[in-house]
Amino acid sequence: MHEQKPIDPNYTTRVRASFARQEVMKTIGASLVELSPGTAVIEFSHDRSLTQQHGYIHAGVVTTVVDSACGYAAYTLMPENSEVLTIEYKVNFMAPAKGDCYRGIGKVLRSGRTITVCSGEVIALEDGREKVVASMLATMIALVR
Amino acid sequence: MHEQKPIDPNYTTRVRASFARQEVMKTIGASLVELSPGTAVIEFSHDRSLTQQHGYIHAGVVTTVVDSACGYAAYTLMPENSEVLTIEYKVNFMAPAKGDCYRGIGKVLRSGRTITVCSGEVIALEDGREKVVASMLATMIALVR
Amino acid sequence: MHEQKPIDPNYTTRVRASFARQEVMKTIGASLVELSPGTAVIEFSHDRSLTQQHGYIHAGVVTTVVDSACGYAAYTLMPENSEVLTIEYKVNFMAPAKGDCYRGIGKVLRSGRTITVCSGEVIALEDGREKVVASMLATMIALVR
Amino acid sequence: MHEQKPIDPNYTTRVRASFARQEVMKTIGASLVELSPGTAVIEFSHDRSLTQQHGYIHAGVVTTVVDSACGYAAYTLMPENSEVLTIEYKVNFMAPAKGDCYRGIGKVLRSGRTITVCSGEVIALEDGREKVVASMLATMIALVR
Repeated sequence: MHEQKPIDPNYTTRVRASFARQEVMKTIGASLVELSPGTAVIEFSHDRSLTQQHGYIHAGVVTTVVDSACGYAAYTLMPENSEVLTIEYKVNFMAPAKGDCYRGIGKVLRSGRTITVCSGEVIALEDGREKVVASMLATMIALVR
Repeated sequence: MHEQKPIDPNYTTRVRASFARQEVMKTIGASLVELSPGTAVIEFSHDRSLTQQHGYIHAGVVTTVVDSACGYAAYTLMPENSEVLTIEYKVNFMAPAKGDCYRGIGKVLRSGRTITVCSGEVIALEDGREKVVASMLATMIALVR
Repeated sequence: MHEQKPIDPNYTTRVRASFARQEVMKTIGASLVELSPGTAVIEFSHDRSLTQQHGYIHAGVVTTVVDSACGYAAYTLMPENSEVLTIEYKVNFMAPAKGDCYRGIGKVLRSGRTITVCSGEVIALEDGREKVVASMLATMIALVR
Repeated sequence: MHEQKPIDPNYTTRVRASFARQEVMKTIGASLVELSPGTAVIEFSHDRSLTQQHGYIHAGVVTTVVDSACGYAAYTLMPENSEVLTIEYKVNFMAPAKGDCYRGIGKVLRSGRTITVCSGEVIALEDGREKVVASMLATMIALVR
């Protein structure tokens, strides 16, 4: 794992303010539950309004949450006067997203001045058991104002 | 482009019934507007409840719609007694998803007995102009009951 | 497809010089057979030294050629004092790479100042018939000296 | 990480025989140096014949080796009468492939009856130091004869 030193000491405030502006997180009912340099964790509960045809959480909703987790993991290490944007990602779905709640974990694999590479994972929690339902590999870009 | 002969003559009914069960499509306000063998098109309007921190549609919502478009494009060519699931996808985001409405287009590149490869695209429509905002390459699997 | 105006009128010389420095292209026996703004085509013949366990061309060799095709397609649109590097790519393998020769085609989907998104395809040619064996979606970066 | 019980007790012989048939591994000078249930490691030395325009190992060669590492990691867990094929992969390049030698590591994240998901990594070794140069997320398929 990449060395993780935030260059903005106030990264927490900056990341949380950006997360709060993501209206879709309210629609999903998702919360940013953990934040440290190079890592972000977002959780949400199962809700019928987020499901696909078999009653599982839609792959795209799983992706939305882990994309934000990866993006904010990257953003912890970016400078104060920057914005983070997703260039691209790839996600593998390893099991149906079936659970009581879900945890999206984003981690920085490598942070550069412009490009940050992250890996992400979504875990379904059901009756106290954990199962990995998705794995992401993502590329983020820092836009400096 | 792959030769596209549906083996289920009633594919339209089957695909539309499955789409109707995707509760998340109602949450997004998305409609299946076109369906032909190997192609599906889904549209939705801009809504603040779907946005990221800059007021654009969140990458994950863009992904949700084009994933369903690709999945249902694949599903048009699958047999009657099958289910379609997303194995994985990769998406590149080429411009901010900023528009009045959005069109997700899924097309089958290659359909096999088990694996179907699709390409997808999301277009933002604003003041009569069209802009490609995302490009997807996806792998779907047919689960035969 | 993106508007394709090269900003370097001598892009052909620049791209061909870079291709000539790729020693691995000699190892594969690959030639840059076409070059135009936003497009590059590379061909190579079947050779046992490039095969995987079933005698087909190894997925990684298919990737090597279409990566260079995408990279040089991107490089046609970059400025004179730039270098092109691959940030990442995703490839789907749609049929065994079995043929007399192979053609890797790279095209720019969107070129920005820093980031260029490309799509690529590899076609196997056998007894006059063509078959798509792989599809790539790639992200390139311009490093300006 | 997924539970890793090989169902074929002779997986080592089977995997090594398949690796020996990959002619491209001889062209690269690559050896299968480690094999255990769900893991494979392949190494090769720097050679000018494998380079891109800046003298680093070409991204496609890096990919070739880690694809085989992932494929054989998956193949350790497949049944005796099976073949392994790559459906697709995505690779992020995190640093130039510049070193004395290189190690491609493939690991199974999830193995199913048909589909196996793997993650891979390529490490450059130079003057005793290690650097991650690439990260892969791959989907393999078991074809049972």
